[in-house]
Amino acid sequence: MTDKNEKHKKSMEKQKEKVDSRIEEASIEKGVVILLTGNGKGKSSSAFGMVLRAMGYGHKIGVVQFIKGAQLSGEEIFIRDLVTQNKYPEITFYQMGTGFTWNTQDRTSDIEAAERTWAEVVPLLQDESYDLVVLDELTYMIAYKYLDEQMILDAIANRPPNQSVIVTGRGGGSALQELADTVSEVKDIKHAFKAGVKARQGVDY
Amino acid sequence: MTDKNEKHKKSMEKQKEKVDSRIEEASIEKGVVILLTGNGKGKSSSAFGMVLRAMGYGHKIGVVQFIKGAQLSGEEIFIRDLVTQNKYPEITFYQMGTGFTWNTQDRTSDIEAAERTWAEVVPLLQDESYDLVVLDELTYMIAYKYLDEQMILDAIANRPPNQSVIVTGRGGGSALQELADTVSEVKDIKHAFKAGVKARQGVDY
Repeated sequence: MTDKNEKHKKSMEKQKEKVDSRIEEASIEKGVVILLTGNGKGKSSSAFGMVLRAMGYGHKIGVVQFIKGAQLSGEEIFIRDLVTQNKYPEITFYQMGTGFTWNTQDRTSDIEAAERTWAEVVPLLQDESYDLVVLDELTYMIAYKYLDEQMILDAIANRPPNQSVIVTGRGGGSALQELADTVSEVKDIKHAFKAGVKARQGVDY
Repeated sequence: MTDKNEKHKKSMEKQKEKVDSRIEEASIEKGVVILLTGNGKGKSSSAFGMVLRAMGYGHKIGVVQFIKGAQLSGEEIFIRDLVTQNKYPEITFYQMGTGFTWNTQDRTSDIEAAERTWAEVVPLLQDESYDLVVLDELTYMIAYKYLDEQMILDAIANRPPNQSVIVTGRGGGSALQELADTVSEVKDIKHAFKAGVKARQGVDY
């Protein structure tokens, strides 16, 4: 074995020890709250990747999309087809469907739509048969004060202990970060859009 | 209309103008290279979310996973079932399947496995019938020098112009960042695992 290979083996052994001891220490079994925030691309798609993951195990899933609008995106088409064709019945899917808030430009009707949508969320967060609840772009409802922050925090905190919740959207506030078990910030380092490249079907929507 | 609503309307109008003019400026139609990097949770799941998105349009997709190991994760189970049950034939799925590199601890066999896996990637990056190619955890192959960086960059740069490529993994190097149209860095702000919470089926794997 060459020196390089020997060095590699030693370094990997050390890394394995570290990973193994961390896995051993992690012993709490419970549903988790994941907050995917930041200004970069990949927050909602990450949530939908976890939906795909949960579907692999036949988990029951609720997806509620705030803001997301009139035009169906690829993942929405795929999930809707699964549901309507009864290929994967264990999924509940609801969209606020008012378009982006800078399109509607009407605060009062936006608040009504947010409250209607939240009313769809409440039963999901009280039903232990749901393994995973995705609240896509919920953070904007807090930032714009369309929904009461404490009401949202309480509903998530008081969910069934084995249920996991994923919240996406920029910002979200420190209280939501505090409540979350895992917080990832997706930072925009570079974006094709800014270089004049059109949003692409199957990648951007 | 109250002052608050009027102010909101004005601010939203301004935001809409900004978004609209950006959309108008973005006129280049081409496949994009997306790099999802950083130390946070959500890189691979984001790539799989875009797979779900592309499936909504019936796109042809290739997924090649470097490093990912012996145990199938939820998204892999779901995709494998789609393929074997012929529910979505337009997907090619290949896994290096040697386990994490700190488990194998053998540099020579890791390099062989990396080269075998890269041989599966090459035809995908030359086949214009593929709309989307996902190279999950490819960055580690560059970082560990298991594969030649320039060879990877050339293969991605010379792909069919309408094909999009998603690369995931920590690091990746400045040349790959340079080549990519979109780069998102997923930063670990907080992770349940570090607080002793066990990795969770349907969320973490």
